Amino acid sequence: MAKRIKKIAVMTSGGDSPGMNAAIRSVVRACAYYRTECVGVYRGYQGMIEGDFTLMTARSVNNIIHKGGTILKSARSKEFMTVDGRKKAHENLLEHNIDALVVIGGDGSFTGGVVFNKEYNFPVIGIPGTIDNDIHGTSHTLGYDTALNTAMDAIDKIRDTASSHDRLFFVEVMGRDAGFIALNAGVGAGAEEILIPEEDLGLDRMLESLKKSKRSGKSSSIVVVAEGDKSGKNVYELANYVEENLPEYEVRVSVLGHMQRGGSPTCFDRVLASRLGVKAVELLIDGNSNLMVGLKNNEVIATDLEKAIKGIQNIDMELLRVSDIMTT
Amino acid sequence: MAKRIKKIAVMTSGGDSPGMNAAIRSVVRACAYYRTECVGVYRGYQGMIEGDFTLMTARSVNNIIHKGGTILKSARSKEFMTVDGRKKAHENLLEHNIDALVVIGGDGSFTGGVVFNKEYNFPVIGIPGTIDNDIHGTSHTLGYDTALNTAMDAIDKIRDTASSHDRLFFVEVMGRDAGFIALNAGVGAGAEEILIPEEDLGLDRMLESLKKSKRSGKSSSIVVVAEGDKSGKNVYELANYVEENLPEYEVRVSVLGHMQRGGSPTCFDRVLASRLGVKAVELLIDGNSNLMVGLKNNEVIATDLEKAIKGIQNIDMELLRVSDIMTT
Amino acid sequence: MAKRIKKIAVMTSGGDSPGMNAAIRSVVRACAYYRTECVGVYRGYQGMIEGDFTLMTARSVNNIIHKGGTILKSARSKEFMTVDGRKKAHENLLEHNIDALVVIGGDGSFTGGVVFNKEYNFPVIGIPGTIDNDIHGTSHTLGYDTALNTAMDAIDKIRDTASSHDRLFFVEVMGRDAGFIALNAGVGAGAEEILIPEEDLGLDRMLESLKKSKRSGKSSSIVVVAEGDKSGKNVYELANYVEENLPEYEVRVSVLGHMQRGGSPTCFDRVLASRLGVKAVELLIDGNSNLMVGLKNNEVIATDLEKAIKGIQNIDMELLRVSDIMTT
Amino acid sequence: MAKRIKKIAVMTSGGDSPGMNAAIRSVVRACAYYRTECVGVYRGYQGMIEGDFTLMTARSVNNIIHKGGTILKSARSKEFMTVDGRKKAHENLLEHNIDALVVIGGDGSFTGGVVFNKEYNFPVIGIPGTIDNDIHGTSHTLGYDTALNTAMDAIDKIRDTASSHDRLFFVEVMGRDAGFIALNAGVGAGAEEILIPEEDLGLDRMLESLKKSKRSGKSSSIVVVAEGDKSGKNVYELANYVEENLPEYEVRVSVLGHMQRGGSPTCFDRVLASRLGVKAVELLIDGNSNLMVGLKNNEVIATDLEKAIKGIQNIDMELLRVSDIMTT
Repeated sequence: MAKRIKKIAVMTSGGDSPGMNAAIRSVVRACAYYRTECVGVYRGYQGMIEGDFTLMTARSVNNIIHKGGTILKSARSKEFMTVDGRKKAHENLLEHNIDALVVIGGDGSFTGGVVFNKEYNFPVIGIPGTIDNDIHGTSHTLGYDTALNTAMDAIDKIRDTASSHDRLFFVEVMGRDAGFIALNAGVGAGAEEILIPEEDLGLDRMLESLKKSKRSGKSSSIVVVAEGDKSGKNVYELANYVEENLPEYEVRVSVLGHMQRGGSPTCFDRVLASRLGVKAVELLIDGNSNLMVGLKNNEVIATDLEKAIKGIQNIDMELLRVSDIMTT
Repeated sequence: MAKRIKKIAVMTSGGDSPGMNAAIRSVVRACAYYRTECVGVYRGYQGMIEGDFTLMTARSVNNIIHKGGTILKSARSKEFMTVDGRKKAHENLLEHNIDALVVIGGDGSFTGGVVFNKEYNFPVIGIPGTIDNDIHGTSHTLGYDTALNTAMDAIDKIRDTASSHDRLFFVEVMGRDAGFIALNAGVGAGAEEILIPEEDLGLDRMLESLKKSKRSGKSSSIVVVAEGDKSGKNVYELANYVEENLPEYEVRVSVLGHMQRGGSPTCFDRVLASRLGVKAVELLIDGNSNLMVGLKNNEVIATDLEKAIKGIQNIDMELLRVSDIMTT
Repeated sequence: MAKRIKKIAVMTSGGDSPGMNAAIRSVVRACAYYRTECVGVYRGYQGMIEGDFTLMTARSVNNIIHKGGTILKSARSKEFMTVDGRKKAHENLLEHNIDALVVIGGDGSFTGGVVFNKEYNFPVIGIPGTIDNDIHGTSHTLGYDTALNTAMDAIDKIRDTASSHDRLFFVEVMGRDAGFIALNAGVGAGAEEILIPEEDLGLDRMLESLKKSKRSGKSSSIVVVAEGDKSGKNVYELANYVEENLPEYEVRVSVLGHMQRGGSPTCFDRVLASRLGVKAVELLIDGNSNLMVGLKNNEVIATDLEKAIKGIQNIDMELLRVSDIMTT
Repeated sequence: MAKRIKKIAVMTSGGDSPGMNAAIRSVVRACAYYRTECVGVYRGYQGMIEGDFTLMTARSVNNIIHKGGTILKSARSKEFMTVDGRKKAHENLLEHNIDALVVIGGDGSFTGGVVFNKEYNFPVIGIPGTIDNDIHGTSHTLGYDTALNTAMDAIDKIRDTASSHDRLFFVEVMGRDAGFIALNAGVGAGAEEILIPEEDLGLDRMLESLKKSKRSGKSSSIVVVAEGDKSGKNVYELANYVEENLPEYEVRVSVLGHMQRGGSPTCFDRVLASRLGVKAVELLIDGNSNLMVGLKNNEVIATDLEKAIKGIQNIDMELLRVSDIMTT
């Protein structure tokens, strides 16, 4: 039978995303509710190795639900990839009588959790926190909804200028190897073209479509490009390519960049964080491990942590079709 | 066999909600894509009775996806509740060779559509547009996600003042007879108490909880109250009641009001509107009628329009529990 | 000769306003720059009486410039209006070797400072922090620019609904006895009518103007009403009055309320707070007292604190005229 | 004596900026108020050459005060730099009985106006519309306040990530050859360093300051760089230079780009636009020409158009000092 869980550690790891603080708050409050102690680990696995811990009570997380970033800070730890690093981390956990770990992060962070769990049979639950939405086992990762709105609002602003000057803008959005942000923010912002890694339609098709758009009376256009786009050209090269082939267009480029990772989380991300944090704690208290909590069909579910890492989160092909119809 | 659909009318009806313009745009563009004519009807059923129509092309809906309100305007029509009114409306549709109707609105608007369909066997598809999220057959109505964020952002601002002055605020949010906005915006804003029509826990419990909150070191508190709350007291009476019973609290009231109906739609609402509009047109072209398009498990589905009106959209009891845990 | 200032206390007092934290930060950092100690006083004069002090270094104010509310909290103190209360406050200041005081607040708070200064010859500098902009000696008070934008954004949202339904909205904004917020947010939001305490044109004129507006083809209208309006009717009574006299209008009311006091300060308010805080500290170090720092013609100036209280901040009559022309 | 002005043309020219629509609205409504006809010219001087005119009434400008961009579109016209181009433009104005011109734009646009006025003695008034605030004769140009807030909000978001990861961010903001946006948005966002063209302190000083900041306990930093910075390195080279010399910092770059030109104008910009538009029309009606309207000491004034072009708008040295003190 599983050991009774009396003290849980929580950390954020990998790239930060809006909603991480709301998730920390939820884990801490759920621990308080279930009369379980809670310890915050600073700077992810690196802080675990260095024993950078802080005791957290329900009051420690007052007034953080609306904050971007993570009060526990985040980092990438090379040392945790070594046997020695993980050994130190484990010793620190034991020394502080910590019985289980909640990791808020992306697939890299979960991989660390899986290895650690295998080596030390230490209970680990993952909460998917990344703006990229590229995690299997959840329809939404924490921060994704916020990043969509941040990117879309920026493109709305760029459209003001694009329309005023009859220009064509190439706007690069984040998303690593996934096109979720590009596709959804692109549809939301009414982009004329959306280039995503999941579907490489070739540059000729884009030229054809832009030509058609011009003929149909549209004088300005927005092309949203996912950073992981597979066209073989980066966003600047794409812009040059179009300018050379379609001299009727005046082309500009904007790379939205790191602002997409920050900002106050949307209501969706805050509510999701609150739900996932409670579930993570309850799963640990009930003796579970090696799971990731996530959302499927608006319900909180648990997925095997290894499956979450290896699985693929498929993009919605129906939405690609809707996007095509919208640019009629 | 169903008559081929060559011309579709689209209207907005009942209370406006963010995303209605995005849905109009989607219906119009989907019509253009399928080479079907599209006509906009101004001011809902009233405009249909008065023949207030406008031809719409893909270009008519340029640059409206991000706008709150509805470019087709909305109204409530008493005349359409009469046999004569509907007769006039039907004659106008025939005169303009309109074969089918897309109604964007809430349950009152759908009721009109059902009656009209029965009387004239006229194809009608509904798109759920209301901030209240009180429609059966869809997990999200158009405008609901935007209203959540508008309400939450306002409560975030109120919290600044509540914390600075150690005050207790009662904040009334919209939602008619449903507690969706109150529950989700309340959890998102970290409210200490949330009063919704679906769960009347009694005023004693609230007093007890506020007392406990004070003892636990929280000096300020937010109570979110749904406008349809069943406590038997309105928000001002609630505030007085608490002030009388808990003199340690300095109480204030804020009624967020109509601003919750407006504003630029969130990415979620714009994408949802784009998806639902296309589906509505495709259903009509495929010979369907008397359906409402909606979202279930992140997929676009169709529900019998009468079921959508009569069914009940249940609130998420798990989230009520999460809310309790968060206020530990 | 004035005593050398080695330790300065800073407090926020009266109603909170956005930018107060930025001003605290500026006072603290300016003290650090000039190697002067700095002490924060919690809850204004009440905290001074209770000795609720905290030592502040440049690092204590990291990451607060963007926050609404005040980390030092605010309160109204009846006890400070008594001789005994002020005596206790003075003793606490002496005990902590505090040489001077910066008060961030409105005229009520400055009155306290003037009395205290007279009784104990204690150096006091005021920083005008209120959303109402009703302080003589500065063109802008801290929080005013933010409140303008908050009110205007809310009215923008209400306009979406007003236009969609051809309605007339009465929107009450804050401002106590001054019409600054109403006039500027009203012009910014394109309101058809603006009712302010400084200019009572009578209700007949408003009716006339609304009639004209309807005739000219405007189907929706916004009337912005300052809370201190002198028409003799509150906003609900005004709405009823118009509905009775102009039945062609469907009237609604919205009271924006306390959200106008919160939220992240605008760039203007943050920069102003930074400038005023530095000046306050420099004035004290240079041996001054009984002054308020403020902005005139984009330059930071000092005004006699008593004049700031007694003087009247006049509203811009040119803008009233512009407002009339805009509603042609 | 000057000819009576019966018809006024208005255009936007050069880079667009938030508030241009509010200024167009103001010019159009002021014309209506003074019973003067008003004509909108599309795409600036180019549209004047091509005769691309539209009659505007008070109703043409309903519901545009809050919109970014310009409904009259903007363009740069090479043809207007030629004698022939200006001749065509003049002929078009005469043909449409246009008596005077309001140009909303920056110094390039005003130069065109000055030349045109000299050649044809045609009444021209300029309204300063640019986010860069680099026009002599006004403390604020239209769009500047909005751009400040857009840039600052983006930096606020970036700070979330910077703090979470203990990183150093170089953020490039717009402003052409002027540092107004960088200095004010930098102070507003609490940037640790601000590099502007007006003050080149050398790279060594920046390194020294960043070292000191690290020692003082700050783990993350933001350096705001004006696009016209004179350090001799672009923002990417600066980042590399720092990374090489201060390996303790993990450095990232973000170029905010074109989103700074768009978005809904702030209350300040909308009110300013309303005031300047009225004044421009009144000056023309009163027989004036060759002036730019602007804001000085919160009052609307007129400056000789040539002086506006040639003069220099000086940056506020006091604010530079405040910025230094804030980064103590």
